[in-house]
Amino acid sequence: MNRKALVAQIRAKKSVLCVGLDTDPQKIPAHLHNEADPVFAFNKAIIDETHSYAVAYKPNLAFYESEGLSGWRSLERTMDYLNEKYPEVFTIADAKRGDIGNTSQRYAKAFYESFNFDSITVAPYMGSDSVKPFLGYPEKWLILLALTSNPGGSDFQLKNLAHGGPLYQEVLNESKKWASDEEMMYVVGATKAEFLRDIRRIVPNHFLLVPGVGAQGGTVDEVMEFGMAKEDAGLLINSSRGILYADSGEAFAEAAAREARVLQEQMRKFL
Amino acid sequence: MNRKALVAQIRAKKSVLCVGLDTDPQKIPAHLHNEADPVFAFNKAIIDETHSYAVAYKPNLAFYESEGLSGWRSLERTMDYLNEKYPEVFTIADAKRGDIGNTSQRYAKAFYESFNFDSITVAPYMGSDSVKPFLGYPEKWLILLALTSNPGGSDFQLKNLAHGGPLYQEVLNESKKWASDEEMMYVVGATKAEFLRDIRRIVPNHFLLVPGVGAQGGTVDEVMEFGMAKEDAGLLINSSRGILYADSGEAFAEAAAREARVLQEQMRKFL
Repeated sequence: MNRKALVAQIRAKKSVLCVGLDTDPQKIPAHLHNEADPVFAFNKAIIDETHSYAVAYKPNLAFYESEGLSGWRSLERTMDYLNEKYPEVFTIADAKRGDIGNTSQRYAKAFYESFNFDSITVAPYMGSDSVKPFLGYPEKWLILLALTSNPGGSDFQLKNLAHGGPLYQEVLNESKKWASDEEMMYVVGATKAEFLRDIRRIVPNHFLLVPGVGAQGGTVDEVMEFGMAKEDAGLLINSSRGILYADSGEAFAEAAAREARVLQEQMRKFL
Repeated sequence: MNRKALVAQIRAKKSVLCVGLDTDPQKIPAHLHNEADPVFAFNKAIIDETHSYAVAYKPNLAFYESEGLSGWRSLERTMDYLNEKYPEVFTIADAKRGDIGNTSQRYAKAFYESFNFDSITVAPYMGSDSVKPFLGYPEKWLILLALTSNPGGSDFQLKNLAHGGPLYQEVLNESKKWASDEEMMYVVGATKAEFLRDIRRIVPNHFLLVPGVGAQGGTVDEVMEFGMAKEDAGLLINSSRGILYADSGEAFAEAAAREARVLQEQMRKFL
């Protein structure tokens, strides 16, 4: 999906909501365990009920990989379903890969081509040649980790460099030379105004994927106010657990839709 | 596997060789494509012929994941074979994962428990709470990326911090507080004496997993001379392509054994 199509969807739905499909087999409602593939049945219902309020879906790959072959099959079914039934939504493989060149090429092939994801999250530690293999696929996006919202994010990302600011800003400054804002986004787990202002000074127009709203804290208002790009929305705000597990019974999908709608209503004011 | 058992194996085989199972379906000999699982057939033959010279095997997960379900099946078969037939060898899931806490826990469960790997490689960018979930499993090891041998490794890892040396040294200094040398190793793609001396000043006794010998350049002699730990070997030196693809015909496994033996003979002088 190119930027124009993504922005058009954002304008049509008046939403920058990304639903994180962190689907935990132990947390899905009991009645789904009668299904042949409970994880897929759960994802399908969530997608069907939330797609009017969400512009993107982000399967967290660890949740599928940790279930072995059956997990990969659930992921495959989920992606096939999204690509066939809702081709307008943006899909993110939350994989946080980062490896040497020929290995990164294999990951790009797996996620962009076999699964037909629109994008994949990538870690920056191994530098340019671990990142660049994810570039150059038409209408595909690399989403680079810059600042993460977990407590350990400060261990290295906020360390100041001898020449310049904190490491995450060096990652932004260096990596923005590698790709345009038409094929690269950043993971920015910042919900604080001060961080968002600093980030927008460095990358005024790149899309930012912002986790950390909802269960992880942070408000939509602050992110929208300080995080939007100059030219267009330039934001995807992710919520996972708050939507997926809003209700643990048979009405889980309707409850998920209600939570998605609450977030979408906070977003529409700014769009 | 605990450190004592790993060191005993190193002493018995007089080798610190790790064979990287970067098995590329397009590079394996043509006759194997008649097998039900060509990748597993290739790995099995490589393992059978090289296990006298090697103390560790390291499947590079990208090569399996990029083949989808069939790739995961090949990995599962390879690990089952190693665990049943050669339980004395040390196994490394070269996954380079790095994610928030609950996601890391899932990866730990998948690789340590489902696949029964002895260890997994982990990226440091997201900090302590993305690393610590891999600790505390008896006889399992976390192998943290510190310095990588790819050209882009210098983009961030060699950047000097305002208070202290380059980033990779900060990673060593911080992370060594999180775990002892009985459950944590480091990936150090350094083959130059100066780097190995600096690293050994910071982590004198941790095991180092050193890629970058063979096809990627670097000599065994220099790594052994400057990289060994004080108390015991403290090294695993990886070679992948140089061993796996030493011959492209029916005698591929014998050729692999010859290459493994050449490396082992360079190592035995120091052990």
